[in-house]
Amino acid sequence: MTAAATDELEGPRSKRRMILEAAVDHFGEVGFEHTKWATVAKDVGIGQTALYHYFESKTHCLLTIMSAELLQAQQRSRVAVEGISDPEEVLRKAVASAFEVTQREALQARILLSHQDLLVAPRPSEREEAERVRARELVREIEATWAEMLRAGMDAGVFPERDERVLVRLVLGLVNSVWRWYRPKGPQTLQEVSDIVVEACVRLVR
Amino acid sequence: MTAAATDELEGPRSKRRMILEAAVDHFGEVGFEHTKWATVAKDVGIGQTALYHYFESKTHCLLTIMSAELLQAQQRSRVAVEGISDPEEVLRKAVASAFEVTQREALQARILLSHQDLLVAPRPSEREEAERVRARELVREIEATWAEMLRAGMDAGVFPERDERVLVRLVLGLVNSVWRWYRPKGPQTLQEVSDIVVEACVRLVR
Repeated sequence: MTAAATDELEGPRSKRRMILEAAVDHFGEVGFEHTKWATVAKDVGIGQTALYHYFESKTHCLLTIMSAELLQAQQRSRVAVEGISDPEEVLRKAVASAFEVTQREALQARILLSHQDLLVAPRPSEREEAERVRARELVREIEATWAEMLRAGMDAGVFPERDERVLVRLVLGLVNSVWRWYRPKGPQTLQEVSDIVVEACVRLVR
Repeated sequence: MTAAATDELEGPRSKRRMILEAAVDHFGEVGFEHTKWATVAKDVGIGQTALYHYFESKTHCLLTIMSAELLQAQQRSRVAVEGISDPEEVLRKAVASAFEVTQREALQARILLSHQDLLVAPRPSEREEAERVRARELVREIEATWAEMLRAGMDAGVFPERDERVLVRLVLGLVNSVWRWYRPKGPQTLQEVSDIVVEACVRLVR
């Protein structure tokens, strides 16, 4: 069972979900390094021992947030393109789905972007390593889904022929880089950013 | 005097430069978190007390690597576009300059990308904070230089009219995202990656 499925069963008020939400708020706003693990426990109103039951370390929690974000991103893009066959429209919907997020999901996306290097090297602890492996698999799945999408457009003669595995990295690199600079109170709304990035990705692929 | 200028005076064999090089190798290959500060001292053949003379912490060293990389990137792009007036050619040369790097500089670029969130919040120590502020100023300078470049192309009617401050972030986001996945022994050479990204940036801007 996936962590997200566990969450569903635990319901929206589950401690696990509350810990993840509090952690996203803190990691996203003051940064992972600056967040004290005890602060998250206090926010949720549980002791450090109870916290340990859910996450054995701050890094374990971070890795869980990262794989949750990857799973949600994958699901968002799948739902967004359902029933659409025109390759350019599929691309537009998939890119736009990355920005159909709540403020907390936007923080989560920024956390993923900022800590992606954590996924490179094996973790010393078993639970951290399991979550890291899960996140890496999701990255691969997402890249494969998007590569198929681009390949279909190339095979249909809508997009020019290019190496879709490289192109997909450029498209996702562009889309994800937004979380570096987007701020809720910045000069562009998330909808405006979305529109700009959708057009940019179409130019990139066409 | 800037840190880079200090380096020049200290010469290529200076301890400071040796520490930075050893740190880039370790941070870039096994990751910042996994690198023991003592390992860097040992590599360079100095004690921890001597190391402290140059960098008060591993994070101070990381921030110094980041601002050094930003300064070099800014200089590389400036030199690359010197004497060129055609806006598209300027863009091509500037993008290509990001990939005219040694293997160690590629690691350095990856380190910068992976730790960019460090630049967001003030540092508790004075020396770390000075380096962070320097890095942030360089990010702003780089964005301003590239924005001017794009604006000149728009004013000349070569690039379509767009908000150059947003476009510059997309272009730099795309260029920098390469360091996430490029590996020296990967399927594409750095020259091939450079050619692909140059063409991608031209499509993005045109």
